[in-house]
Amino acid sequence: MSHAKVRPVILCGGSGKRLWPVSRKSRPKQFVRLFGQESLLQTTLRRLEEMGCVNPLLMTAEDYRFVVQEQLAEMGLGGASVVVEPTPRNTGPAICAAAGLAFADDPEALLLVAPSDHHIGDVTAFGQALAAGIEQALDGRIVTFGIRPDRAETGYGYIETAERPQDGIAQTFQRFVEKPDLAGAQLMQESGRYLWNAGIFLFSARSILAAFGTHAPGVALAVKASIASSRPDLSFLRLGPEFAEAPEISVDYAVLEHVAGVVIPVSARWNDMGSWRSVWQESVRDGQEVARSGEVTAIGCADSLLRSDEPGVHLVGIGLKNIAAVATRDGVLITDLDATQSVSEAVIHLQKAGVKQADDFPRQARPWGHYETLAMGPRFQVKSIVVKPGGQLSLQSHVHRAEHWVVVEGTAQVTVGQEARLVGENQSVYIPLGAVHRLANPGKLPLRLIEVQTGAYLGEDDIRRYEDVYARK
Amino acid sequence: MSHAKVRPVILCGGSGKRLWPVSRKSRPKQFVRLFGQESLLQTTLRRLEEMGCVNPLLMTAEDYRFVVQEQLAEMGLGGASVVVEPTPRNTGPAICAAAGLAFADDPEALLLVAPSDHHIGDVTAFGQALAAGIEQALDGRIVTFGIRPDRAETGYGYIETAERPQDGIAQTFQRFVEKPDLAGAQLMQESGRYLWNAGIFLFSARSILAAFGTHAPGVALAVKASIASSRPDLSFLRLGPEFAEAPEISVDYAVLEHVAGVVIPVSARWNDMGSWRSVWQESVRDGQEVARSGEVTAIGCADSLLRSDEPGVHLVGIGLKNIAAVATRDGVLITDLDATQSVSEAVIHLQKAGVKQADDFPRQARPWGHYETLAMGPRFQVKSIVVKPGGQLSLQSHVHRAEHWVVVEGTAQVTVGQEARLVGENQSVYIPLGAVHRLANPGKLPLRLIEVQTGAYLGEDDIRRYEDVYARK
Repeated sequence: MSHAKVRPVILCGGSGKRLWPVSRKSRPKQFVRLFGQESLLQTTLRRLEEMGCVNPLLMTAEDYRFVVQEQLAEMGLGGASVVVEPTPRNTGPAICAAAGLAFADDPEALLLVAPSDHHIGDVTAFGQALAAGIEQALDGRIVTFGIRPDRAETGYGYIETAERPQDGIAQTFQRFVEKPDLAGAQLMQESGRYLWNAGIFLFSARSILAAFGTHAPGVALAVKASIASSRPDLSFLRLGPEFAEAPEISVDYAVLEHVAGVVIPVSARWNDMGSWRSVWQESVRDGQEVARSGEVTAIGCADSLLRSDEPGVHLVGIGLKNIAAVATRDGVLITDLDATQSVSEAVIHLQKAGVKQADDFPRQARPWGHYETLAMGPRFQVKSIVVKPGGQLSLQSHVHRAEHWVVVEGTAQVTVGQEARLVGENQSVYIPLGAVHRLANPGKLPLRLIEVQTGAYLGEDDIRRYEDVYARK
Repeated sequence: MSHAKVRPVILCGGSGKRLWPVSRKSRPKQFVRLFGQESLLQTTLRRLEEMGCVNPLLMTAEDYRFVVQEQLAEMGLGGASVVVEPTPRNTGPAICAAAGLAFADDPEALLLVAPSDHHIGDVTAFGQALAAGIEQALDGRIVTFGIRPDRAETGYGYIETAERPQDGIAQTFQRFVEKPDLAGAQLMQESGRYLWNAGIFLFSARSILAAFGTHAPGVALAVKASIASSRPDLSFLRLGPEFAEAPEISVDYAVLEHVAGVVIPVSARWNDMGSWRSVWQESVRDGQEVARSGEVTAIGCADSLLRSDEPGVHLVGIGLKNIAAVATRDGVLITDLDATQSVSEAVIHLQKAGVKQADDFPRQARPWGHYETLAMGPRFQVKSIVVKPGGQLSLQSHVHRAEHWVVVEGTAQVTVGQEARLVGENQSVYIPLGAVHRLANPGKLPLRLIEVQTGAYLGEDDIRRYEDVYARK
């Protein structure tokens, strides 16, 4: 099956708290390798690629642009369009902007909008629904895909249909229904007329822009201005500051509720991966319904999820029932599987308490690579620094700290003052306090070095930048 | 109350698996800071010191001699006698050796034998029982203290008495009873004639040696020979190799069952700290019976123990009931509180699977201080090394690795080849592959340095020692 005319619009700017400690504000769940070697974003992109959808357009936030780029590059999709929203305004403005940009290339382009962090178990069923949707979208209709519920779920929003819907058969869209209580969810499941809203939509750029113009002119105007003032930055396209003037509204309420669209039901074993319970449901489980991942030992456990996401951290579960236990290097979660909806609440609690693990990981992604603090003392800090081939740190100096660098893998180009030289494996360099210096990886292999900082103040903000290829301040 | 004549004999050579991951073979539970800043050994020593028992004699194993010495030094007891058993032979030979050594100082010395890893909640009650015991021991009797049960416990051994015993009143000892099943434990508790065997005994050196001579001549002979061939080593006394010829037997079976001793009942709120359930019982708990220790957040939990024993690792529990969760840097345990007896089984499982966390900690104690691996790669390793004031590493060389040292605290004396020099904070040294070198801390403050090793092979066994003040090979 080929849908060569369909261009995916992937929304990957969102951040959530529900899969803490594996997903955090600095790396939300769409970028996490929850299963195997692929992130949810990568799985989403590969799925769409395999269905013949090409030339994806990714909408993301300032903070995530480099991780999006890195994950695209890992898949050989380095040329995909990555659009940076200057401020998050929910799905309405993001989709309007994507449509505006796609329209400039091809007004008739069909756009398949999809979240980047969901699971689809039955890709064939989804492909069939997509084929049905294309017919409708080519006729100018706005298509919503609705997932047929297999249980009374209170965690999802619903779509009401007029008749009992049939898989793959488009019917007139009635209305969106907010997340129900349990009684409501049971009623909706029994009636057979309700579908889950998975946030997956299909339309032509022309149709959706027309609908925004009619039903959400505030969004359309601000977005149009932000496209006009957009500018390329490295491989990204940055929307202009007018984007922030768009009302913060979902595409559902901004447009879809107001147009005579259609809904196409699909039984795709969809899961929003919105909790550790969801992850458990989609994990491979043993005969006792125990899902294991990483360095884990389970003895006498049942109906549980045991994960170690940090190599070198061994997790042992004994006699557990209906528990999710997730260990990372600096955060461990143990929760009743029926209480996984409280994880967000726990993270808010950590944020209020100033616990840094609430939002941040020990490993910090940077455009040039990443670094990680290995040890910290009152007057020293040890970091592992990895610079990608071709990457370079800004030309910088520090007022309060000196740095020792020992290269352990690859080759570094180190500039201190006026002097530049190559530093190979097992060689070291000393950067005195105050010296203007730069670190770059001129080679074809990653460069790894161990940095030992010494000084009275070791904060990240003791940095004066003179030049930066990544345009940071 | 003063018991100036009583000399404590502290058994601290045992190793267990039941408090994994906080206690491991390389640092058994007596050395662990389970509550606050003191280890169980230190609490035991302080308790006895406060009761007026002086000049303790500590029986330990080869592997634990330096940690015993360090914990004594922390308490200002650096001069205490530490005796190294060349091989573990259970409590019989250990106590016989302690008695033999004490006898040489004073044949009439009263010895109070106590494990180093138990909890005593009511020290006053214990002191009263001790006073009663002293009268008996001065008359030449062998005294066993028995703990009055407050529940039907299957995890402890029992002592049978002839009549319903009264606290503090000595009565004739009848016999030891092995750990019972639940029905047996209930019967024993109801009868009122059974006490828990806490492994706490009192006798004169002369009496117990006579008893060993009569009832366990094999133990007495081997131990006597090992004392004759014992030799001082640094601040330790090493028993001779004949110690290994003593039969492996507990003092209970070797001697106490066969002598006309007495038992003194005591309600001391004793706990053998033999499981995470025991630790939970002795911990401060909130209104929901949740015990917390370290960087922990509990939401909607009850009847649970939540511990983070690693600074920087935050543990979050949600909706847990009857669970113990314990996080360390490299191992996490989550167990039903009713299954904590299975922790040993889990550790054996880890040992068989070759999981290094089964027995070892990331931080390795050494006579000169300690080190810890911070990061490891295929051709490099980063360690944090702390050398105590006055400590020095062996004169050594490596065939496969070079080392970079950056001093981050204190001052190092570094010898490379023929050249010795002082290296201060923020200075670095390079030790080329093959170079004979030594590291020492000549100062008054701890020395901390970051070592970056590079090479094709980085195992601890790539070391050639030329000289070692701690007499290691």
